[in-house]
Amino acid sequence: MITPENTVITNLGPRNIPSPLRLSARCGDGVAQFVSDTARVRYQVECGGDNDLPGDIFFEKAGAREKLFFDPAKTTAAIVTCGGICPGLNNVIRSAFLELHFNYGVKNVLGIRYGYAGLNPKAGLPPVKLTQELVREIHEDGGTVLGSSRGPQPADTIVDFLVERGINILLCIGGDGTLRGACDVATEAQKRGLPIAVVGIPKTIDNDVMYVTRTFGIVTAMEKARHVLDGAHSEAHSAFNGVGLVKVMGRDAGFIAAGATLASQDVNFCLVPEVPFALEGPNGLFEALRRYLENSRHAVIVVAEGAGQDLFKDLPVEKDASGNKRHADIGVFLKEQIAAWFKRNNVPVDVKYFDPSYYIRSAPANCDDAILCDQFGRKAVHAAMAGKTNMVVGFWNGTFTHLPISLAVSQKKRLDPEGLIWGSVLAATGQPRRFV
Amino acid sequence: MITPENTVITNLGPRNIPSPLRLSARCGDGVAQFVSDTARVRYQVECGGDNDLPGDIFFEKAGAREKLFFDPAKTTAAIVTCGGICPGLNNVIRSAFLELHFNYGVKNVLGIRYGYAGLNPKAGLPPVKLTQELVREIHEDGGTVLGSSRGPQPADTIVDFLVERGINILLCIGGDGTLRGACDVATEAQKRGLPIAVVGIPKTIDNDVMYVTRTFGIVTAMEKARHVLDGAHSEAHSAFNGVGLVKVMGRDAGFIAAGATLASQDVNFCLVPEVPFALEGPNGLFEALRRYLENSRHAVIVVAEGAGQDLFKDLPVEKDASGNKRHADIGVFLKEQIAAWFKRNNVPVDVKYFDPSYYIRSAPANCDDAILCDQFGRKAVHAAMAGKTNMVVGFWNGTFTHLPISLAVSQKKRLDPEGLIWGSVLAATGQPRRFV
Amino acid sequence: MITPENTVITNLGPRNIPSPLRLSARCGDGVAQFVSDTARVRYQVECGGDNDLPGDIFFEKAGAREKLFFDPAKTTAAIVTCGGICPGLNNVIRSAFLELHFNYGVKNVLGIRYGYAGLNPKAGLPPVKLTQELVREIHEDGGTVLGSSRGPQPADTIVDFLVERGINILLCIGGDGTLRGACDVATEAQKRGLPIAVVGIPKTIDNDVMYVTRTFGIVTAMEKARHVLDGAHSEAHSAFNGVGLVKVMGRDAGFIAAGATLASQDVNFCLVPEVPFALEGPNGLFEALRRYLENSRHAVIVVAEGAGQDLFKDLPVEKDASGNKRHADIGVFLKEQIAAWFKRNNVPVDVKYFDPSYYIRSAPANCDDAILCDQFGRKAVHAAMAGKTNMVVGFWNGTFTHLPISLAVSQKKRLDPEGLIWGSVLAATGQPRRFV
Amino acid sequence: MITPENTVITNLGPRNIPSPLRLSARCGDGVAQFVSDTARVRYQVECGGDNDLPGDIFFEKAGAREKLFFDPAKTTAAIVTCGGICPGLNNVIRSAFLELHFNYGVKNVLGIRYGYAGLNPKAGLPPVKLTQELVREIHEDGGTVLGSSRGPQPADTIVDFLVERGINILLCIGGDGTLRGACDVATEAQKRGLPIAVVGIPKTIDNDVMYVTRTFGIVTAMEKARHVLDGAHSEAHSAFNGVGLVKVMGRDAGFIAAGATLASQDVNFCLVPEVPFALEGPNGLFEALRRYLENSRHAVIVVAEGAGQDLFKDLPVEKDASGNKRHADIGVFLKEQIAAWFKRNNVPVDVKYFDPSYYIRSAPANCDDAILCDQFGRKAVHAAMAGKTNMVVGFWNGTFTHLPISLAVSQKKRLDPEGLIWGSVLAATGQPRRFV
Repeated sequence: MITPENTVITNLGPRNIPSPLRLSARCGDGVAQFVSDTARVRYQVECGGDNDLPGDIFFEKAGAREKLFFDPAKTTAAIVTCGGICPGLNNVIRSAFLELHFNYGVKNVLGIRYGYAGLNPKAGLPPVKLTQELVREIHEDGGTVLGSSRGPQPADTIVDFLVERGINILLCIGGDGTLRGACDVATEAQKRGLPIAVVGIPKTIDNDVMYVTRTFGIVTAMEKARHVLDGAHSEAHSAFNGVGLVKVMGRDAGFIAAGATLASQDVNFCLVPEVPFALEGPNGLFEALRRYLENSRHAVIVVAEGAGQDLFKDLPVEKDASGNKRHADIGVFLKEQIAAWFKRNNVPVDVKYFDPSYYIRSAPANCDDAILCDQFGRKAVHAAMAGKTNMVVGFWNGTFTHLPISLAVSQKKRLDPEGLIWGSVLAATGQPRRFV
Repeated sequence: MITPENTVITNLGPRNIPSPLRLSARCGDGVAQFVSDTARVRYQVECGGDNDLPGDIFFEKAGAREKLFFDPAKTTAAIVTCGGICPGLNNVIRSAFLELHFNYGVKNVLGIRYGYAGLNPKAGLPPVKLTQELVREIHEDGGTVLGSSRGPQPADTIVDFLVERGINILLCIGGDGTLRGACDVATEAQKRGLPIAVVGIPKTIDNDVMYVTRTFGIVTAMEKARHVLDGAHSEAHSAFNGVGLVKVMGRDAGFIAAGATLASQDVNFCLVPEVPFALEGPNGLFEALRRYLENSRHAVIVVAEGAGQDLFKDLPVEKDASGNKRHADIGVFLKEQIAAWFKRNNVPVDVKYFDPSYYIRSAPANCDDAILCDQFGRKAVHAAMAGKTNMVVGFWNGTFTHLPISLAVSQKKRLDPEGLIWGSVLAATGQPRRFV
Repeated sequence: MITPENTVITNLGPRNIPSPLRLSARCGDGVAQFVSDTARVRYQVECGGDNDLPGDIFFEKAGAREKLFFDPAKTTAAIVTCGGICPGLNNVIRSAFLELHFNYGVKNVLGIRYGYAGLNPKAGLPPVKLTQELVREIHEDGGTVLGSSRGPQPADTIVDFLVERGINILLCIGGDGTLRGACDVATEAQKRGLPIAVVGIPKTIDNDVMYVTRTFGIVTAMEKARHVLDGAHSEAHSAFNGVGLVKVMGRDAGFIAAGATLASQDVNFCLVPEVPFALEGPNGLFEALRRYLENSRHAVIVVAEGAGQDLFKDLPVEKDASGNKRHADIGVFLKEQIAAWFKRNNVPVDVKYFDPSYYIRSAPANCDDAILCDQFGRKAVHAAMAGKTNMVVGFWNGTFTHLPISLAVSQKKRLDPEGLIWGSVLAATGQPRRFV
Repeated sequence: MITPENTVITNLGPRNIPSPLRLSARCGDGVAQFVSDTARVRYQVECGGDNDLPGDIFFEKAGAREKLFFDPAKTTAAIVTCGGICPGLNNVIRSAFLELHFNYGVKNVLGIRYGYAGLNPKAGLPPVKLTQELVREIHEDGGTVLGSSRGPQPADTIVDFLVERGINILLCIGGDGTLRGACDVATEAQKRGLPIAVVGIPKTIDNDVMYVTRTFGIVTAMEKARHVLDGAHSEAHSAFNGVGLVKVMGRDAGFIAAGATLASQDVNFCLVPEVPFALEGPNGLFEALRRYLENSRHAVIVVAEGAGQDLFKDLPVEKDASGNKRHADIGVFLKEQIAAWFKRNNVPVDVKYFDPSYYIRSAPANCDDAILCDQFGRKAVHAAMAGKTNMVVGFWNGTFTHLPISLAVSQKKRLDPEGLIWGSVLAATGQPRRFV
């Protein structure tokens, strides 16, 4: 739960170094200004309705500070990418490097190889020195040029590594687990009294970071998912009682499923983790599908991978290397159950199943994400150079913010079943509010 | 200048008809709520910095109201698209129709042909009745299925037409001029005491509507412009001292040029209407280009069509059918001037000129714009059914709002030379802040 | 085996009706000519090498004939699409309709619903009358607007249906099974002495029709598969010993796998049905993959769905509704076996599996396929109007031909392990010629 | 005019070096074979029609030879790209390098900078040594990584340069002028008795090389042009009497215009250099356009840049650096003339003009072109290693061939107004055969 207290950002210490950025200290001279450390972004922008939220909570505003904590000439920065890939990783790496190198004049910028593993000497994966040549065209490629991996490494091992390599700034691009790890590293460094800034950039293909309107890559993923939905529509349309069934990413949040549904406008049933659904019974999914086919002779269903997990409640729980719960495969399950149910009910059906899996997350960033990534990368550098630590860069109400890591990972963002997006999905699909 | 007074929305009268939408009146039951008429969206979200803006200005929040002004069974609605096309027009038409038809149960929805001309009987262009069949796939096409045209028609002629056809709701999708026209129609109807709701949806490929963060179509246009920039980069890279020069839309605002620059990251010089530039002299564009070519042997320049108009200050002013000032062609001018200047200075140069013109605005909406369009269309319907008039739907701080037309057209939005976007452009291109 | 005898085309009878097409009877007047019925296309274009093929076999050349068998004013044509969908089906339907309707003046053109099922009255799926309005934009969509289905219907039932509906021309768009069905219908009609022309257009996403260089849709499918390979490359590149494994369509022929490999140039191992491979052993796939990862730390593998079926030789054989053998899932199998083998050998590996399934075949036709489809559709109409039957339209040496159905289905085309394409795949991947 | 005599290829001398390629000398062992030097590809595949062409002309078949002229260990190869860019240039460079480097073991492969200029020491543009690292991802970019330029250099200067650098093989990728230059270099080298192989790869965005079915890049260009046509259709459709007018590349040949027309199917008038047209008069273009608009209210016109040049016959002729005739701008001319004619005739019209210029040629190769490029690059290497010179690689009847340069440049390929493609254009557009 957000409070005025838990939005406060940790600073490594006083800022004495004048910023080399040629920004202005005053408004109106045609030159962008430095951002004051007291500038804030309001958490809550709506009011006056029937369900008002508490009014006066603010985030620290992101941006270049006039005074720095780190002297660029004596600073070494490192960038690490962790967890699953996401459109725009290379853009973030590139913009962070360019900002450090060209604008701040930090000449030592290291790329950590293969996630946190590359911060553990045991792995034998030494960092690479980033150069303009190396990053020139990386934003045109999906994935991360640094490599990534799942799973944590001991915080004290990482801090030892940073000390040994003389790294003052660590930019961590990753999700939940990565940010918790970054928090541990920042805490360990502070405990040792080391002037090391650890700044996170939230990365999740599921767009499920709390207090961040939109994480980078999500729009690209929705666009790719939409293309798959187009294919599913063509398949469904071409068969008698054809059903195009598409599983998309979304472990705990249905943003990709919902966004692709809205963009496509060809989806008839959208299933997300936030809204449980029954399969059988007169108000269940299958009966609704049967009725829809009766009229239209084809239908498209999109299901987020984390949807309907209660349908598997008797199965044992498995976890992956990052400790994420492995989900039972709702896509394959639905495909089989639909076929079986319609057979039992003597209604012909032709289910075509699509599992694009990694396809939708391995694309290069589209225009909108590319612009967002550029900002995330540069804002992280501004924060780190100003000596901020144990924080992530946020994006809220159209502005970039600073968030304590602990706040960002306190909860996962979910699609609100009473909110704008889900309301639009219901309107666009015409599906019932609940399958019960 | 925005004030608490000029954000007030006009209502046709008391709302007595219960909405047929099955929304909830209270929070927490898993069903989206109706939006209270007192709900507001804060204009200003930042504070505490060195240049605080006035605090307490609010917009009315958009959304479905619990009570309606119009009885759906007795309502006829009409949709008109005016001015130049823009990605997403068909999406807006489609979603507005679907919301009216399926959710509110308004059975008479007319499509006005070819802009305001179709509201003047003299033009002989009768409206078409919109149907589900007709709109089914239109969102996959660029342009407007209704047709469009430039220029106004007399307000009283239009009101006569609405009366004669029994039209209670007029949704006007268009830019500046269109919205002024809509304002005249609303005013004339009010003067006559007619219960006609006129609701605008702002449409501009230039993204230059004040108090609207993002108009639909702009991201698609930036994506298309980026593809052209990719081509310009390939051409420039393939020639000795190759210069890829691209002119993009943007009469008074450089949003497309700036956005495509940020997405592409291959642009070296970005020229927009908001930032004047000198061509000659030691700090002029040409000298900067010469220096850049000396190191890199190729460069990419993007110029918004409205940039550098002061360079033509001696030419006579021409206007188009909508009364927009016709711009002198900065693209062709630059191409010729660069060639001439380099020839004079004995430096070889190979300029490849790209003028994608309408190409970037005639595409279908991409995923992000499609989602935005769906919202704009449905929010306009909610407003109109509630009897709001003389207003446009806005998008501000991530939420949809109601704006008086007079406020929306009071000024054009410009790229802020001191703001976030332009700052990013300078960082991404490395170009000097000013060419003087 | 092709012989001069089995290339002979069946004609329904003498041609007495002058063609309404305004073509020329002679060369050089700037107007395209009618094609003489004696015009031939050479089967074999190469000679003089060490392995000469028999020289003098020819196909009948496709094209408009000067005299027709059918009187357009009295003709009813029907179009049917069968089996799995393929990019370009709608283009073929559309061009065939346009050629019949506008150029020949055949006013009754029916679209048969859902494949051969729509030719059996029991299915209760009456044909639709095709119109210009209906086909206007269908070429922009994947799939078939007529619907499709698998499986045959009795030839005599179909002929009864054709007689009852007064259908003189049946254009069958489909694969192997469909063409055999068309052959039965043509034979039954001939047996009854009915003047009905049955003309096939070969459709297979696998490009495996003998004596047809390229079937429509294959290039689009390769392009889509290539996009998936790009994603696999990004995933593989982003992980330590990352392996991107992609299964693509190709039951008996590896054309999609090979084509996407050549276009992508990022594939390290391409596995096709035509070239068996061993997994284990010092020259097996796994050892080669291990060696490759040792140097490169990531690899991409593409496997056609029909590849390596001998690895499952102990499993029971299943068949689908068209009688096609169901293949055991080589993709999932490889994914599991790679993981297991590397685990046994204590080498870390991170396999990301992609199964785009129907995605690559459900796209609209790209430019090249669209052009091909236009030709196939029109050439089929020319043949049918001239009274040719029991034939398919072929494409050979850059020209369109007529092939007896019996010849076209006598064998399936395979990728030649000694041929041009596979040689290029070996050169592009650098993989060993054999995994033994 | 092609004769048996002028298809003969020049060989530098006897081949004594065994090829390192592990191909087979016999058929049927599952391994691709070397191509015998006596293998031929038939020029003419059609016969038996009313306008038979001479029968027995053959091209030499391309492919790897069993014996080489050059010893790979002692060979230095160079690659040069000249003239305007074209999709696939980097693919050709990359595949030629990979074939030389990995398959033949030629360790010295140079990239010549900026066309023939880089072969003249005066330009001060030394070659770069190509490496695997350098070429790894170049096929994903448009343009040429080597740079290009227009215009010739003296043959003896180039031969001096080749001798000085020890270059034995020169691969020239370029158009007409480039190939003439390559012919001069080959001739000069032969005159001096130097064992230098000069092999050309035909490059022209216009697809106008005689005896080559399809040059690389043309399908990509058609696809890009088609996208622009889609935009023009959207613009035209959205205006009353809207006319989308698109100018595409095609100086002397209308292949891009025709191909994009066939793929788009939305074009109403296609104008190419090969078919003259009158504007005025009852059978002129304008009257046809007026009639078409009367029914449809919108139209799309595509015009190749070289079309209708006779309309400018009184203007003086200009030439570019390569000696190509500069064309008067038919696009702008048509735009103005249409506006003027309709104004004179009191018919409203709204012309939207598109000039995508370089956009359509600066894209990376699509799938189909990528496959073709891979072949062209490798076949050129095979020819050169075998000591063939003064030739270009051709593509004919689906097979790769060797063509004497003199034959390839003897004439330009044109769209045949009586041929398959133009016939399809007439059928697809419904336009009259002639505007007279």
